Amino acid sequence: MKTVKIGMLGIGNIGRGTYMTLETNRHKIEEATDLDLQIVKILNRHPEKDRGIDIPKEKYVTDIRDILDDPEIQIVIELIGGVEPATTYMAEALKAGKHVVTANKAAIAKNGRMLQELATEKQLMLRFEASVAGGIPILNAITSALICNEFSSVQGILNGTTNYILTRMTEDGASYEDVLKDAQAKGFAEADPTSDVEGIDAANKLSILISLLFGIGVAPEDIPTRGISDISSKDINFAREFGYTIKLLASAESHDGTLTCNVEPSLVPLDHPLANVNNEFNAVYITGNAVDNLMFYGRGAGPYPTGSAVIGDVIGEARKIEKGAAYDLTPHLRYDADLDFRGEGQNPYYVRLRAEDRPGVLGQIASTLGTYEISIRTMTQQTDKEEDGVVSIIIIVHDVERNVLETALNVLLKNHSVKSIDNVLRVLE
Amino acid sequence: MKTVKIGMLGIGNIGRGTYMTLETNRHKIEEATDLDLQIVKILNRHPEKDRGIDIPKEKYVTDIRDILDDPEIQIVIELIGGVEPATTYMAEALKAGKHVVTANKAAIAKNGRMLQELATEKQLMLRFEASVAGGIPILNAITSALICNEFSSVQGILNGTTNYILTRMTEDGASYEDVLKDAQAKGFAEADPTSDVEGIDAANKLSILISLLFGIGVAPEDIPTRGISDISSKDINFAREFGYTIKLLASAESHDGTLTCNVEPSLVPLDHPLANVNNEFNAVYITGNAVDNLMFYGRGAGPYPTGSAVIGDVIGEARKIEKGAAYDLTPHLRYDADLDFRGEGQNPYYVRLRAEDRPGVLGQIASTLGTYEISIRTMTQQTDKEEDGVVSIIIIVHDVERNVLETALNVLLKNHSVKSIDNVLRVLE
Repeated sequence: MKTVKIGMLGIGNIGRGTYMTLETNRHKIEEATDLDLQIVKILNRHPEKDRGIDIPKEKYVTDIRDILDDPEIQIVIELIGGVEPATTYMAEALKAGKHVVTANKAAIAKNGRMLQELATEKQLMLRFEASVAGGIPILNAITSALICNEFSSVQGILNGTTNYILTRMTEDGASYEDVLKDAQAKGFAEADPTSDVEGIDAANKLSILISLLFGIGVAPEDIPTRGISDISSKDINFAREFGYTIKLLASAESHDGTLTCNVEPSLVPLDHPLANVNNEFNAVYITGNAVDNLMFYGRGAGPYPTGSAVIGDVIGEARKIEKGAAYDLTPHLRYDADLDFRGEGQNPYYVRLRAEDRPGVLGQIASTLGTYEISIRTMTQQTDKEEDGVVSIIIIVHDVERNVLETALNVLLKNHSVKSIDNVLRVLE
Repeated sequence: MKTVKIGMLGIGNIGRGTYMTLETNRHKIEEATDLDLQIVKILNRHPEKDRGIDIPKEKYVTDIRDILDDPEIQIVIELIGGVEPATTYMAEALKAGKHVVTANKAAIAKNGRMLQELATEKQLMLRFEASVAGGIPILNAITSALICNEFSSVQGILNGTTNYILTRMTEDGASYEDVLKDAQAKGFAEADPTSDVEGIDAANKLSILISLLFGIGVAPEDIPTRGISDISSKDINFAREFGYTIKLLASAESHDGTLTCNVEPSLVPLDHPLANVNNEFNAVYITGNAVDNLMFYGRGAGPYPTGSAVIGDVIGEARKIEKGAAYDLTPHLRYDADLDFRGEGQNPYYVRLRAEDRPGVLGQIASTLGTYEISIRTMTQQTDKEEDGVVSIIIIVHDVERNVLETALNVLLKNHSVKSIDNVLRVLE
């Protein structure tokens, strides 16, 4: 049995889950891989804090140099999270000749290219399975077993907090605000939920998927991103009437030499496999030209599912170290494909607006949309009047650029019949 | 770029799909892997037959020695199917120093152990991703990214033909016989559908999954297996009433040192992710102690999805050949776990029977089941009488050994009130 010594940076929730996954399953891992994996040092900036886990005190170090300068440590696991100091620490680890495993989507989305170049130069491995969709081994799949495919699209439910909130709104009829408060009380949402509910977390993960699936770099801040805070139970109910459920989708498509993508609450047909991905579960739905449609479903967060992915990466690296064929960049971020990034492209949209309840209004709206060459798939006036003389109108339009649609909707607003544009959401076909 | 030369055995549907996947995606594969994969010889026992594919005639050979004796060929792809001569050919290829890739579930389920021992002895690779669930990269996932998990259960929809038939019966209300005929006409079912509809195909795949997930050998013929030919639209409708849909599930569970498994049409709760796997799609739902529940969904058959898995394996082997670290048994069939195989174990069951429509009959049935310590979860007498004085009764019972249940049901049959036992199906919890 070959021993591989590991240094771990950070001992928060994910760090504890990773440590416990390794210790609890040590017997299985040794049997299956003939590897003795030892986390020998842990960077813990607050060693006085009770972590609620039985780790020998002598493993804790407060200075990262104790890990970087230890010649016996071959793999460094980074679980601090956030762009810095995590990026600097990973770069230092590579410079010190250590292979790296990380769960850090923000650092990989922002600095993956630089870190990968450093790993290549040093002939070291850099793995980050846990950075996208937690325990779901999607990065490994698309860059090994599925690598012969040309991929044409991906749609992901990549954030558990928002999927939990939308599921509770859908199943319980509760408001966004109430469900968010409840999720915060239960620890499913952070005190500051911005990164989750505004889609930033999902955009980081989509940026990584785009590089692996399509071979081009799109920075998270360049991905058109909208969060779920404007979704009301009205949208959820109207969507259901039309045969859809609302999910925060991270989507990207490649066609005719262009790449389009966005993160946005989207109407998903009820018979689509993604429609049944509920609560805190994540899923990634991809289409390749040989394998056709595939979906991976599982837990996208949590200490143990994330620990499963981290230890999976550690084993992947340790097996290669053992075989003496250490250098292998899988997954491999690519930035060289011949694709033009074209923003979010053309999509079908759902529009909810309020207008005067009088004859001719639907016709006016249809004509105005028509002058912008926006083609209407469905248009329904809701029978329940919300206030005197004003009704909700739901329109689903065929493929259109979102800015063209918004220009047309602004023209409608100047028309006195239309009182407000209440929501505009992408529709998945 | 490194060239790897390949010999392929068989040029049926899967062979053509594999060849076309490699040729169509050659550019993507070269960019992503820096490998030039060349299928240089193809064993074609009927070279005169028009295969409807543009393959240079000089690649065809009729004698396998032309492939085995070619020192330039490093990988042999076996796509003949069936146990023999495929097993012998793979053994010969390993003896000749070739790495092997196969899509052959029957040969791996029966002879995987022998072939793996041969590969180990020769320090060669043996891969068989396509043998279970076609294009879905489940074997790679469970033996690499997820390998740190102790797995407790697997439920798979592993046969596309039967899933297509059950879906059409459910959605169209058609009979088993009519849907089977239609599926045969469309080429979704074989002229002799026995292996699919009787669950034999699924049992082969489950045997492979059991070895990889739980580390013990259970031969396909030792897996309790029932097919779908006895499912009627009555069962489908009653199941729906109780909140279930019927799927042919291949299941295995490990608990307290025992392994239980079976292949059987089973009632799946409508809110379970497997309930929405429809038509010819396959899915594998697994539970690991770190990663929790995961589902992989995709196409389990077809030339291109299967070709995707075969070429994925070829690339996996070619990458290791290129790095000079050729010997690596992933996936690794294991037979050494400390688990007792206990047949199908205890499960909840659905029972449909016909009995006289008179007071006291339900009580009699419940008492008889009670004497066998069979606990009833639900018992309903259907209101639509089928014939004079006889009604259908649906019973769902808690965990029980199937043979105990059948003994009790036979006692009921001797009771004149019970006219027939029409079906007994496992219930997934």
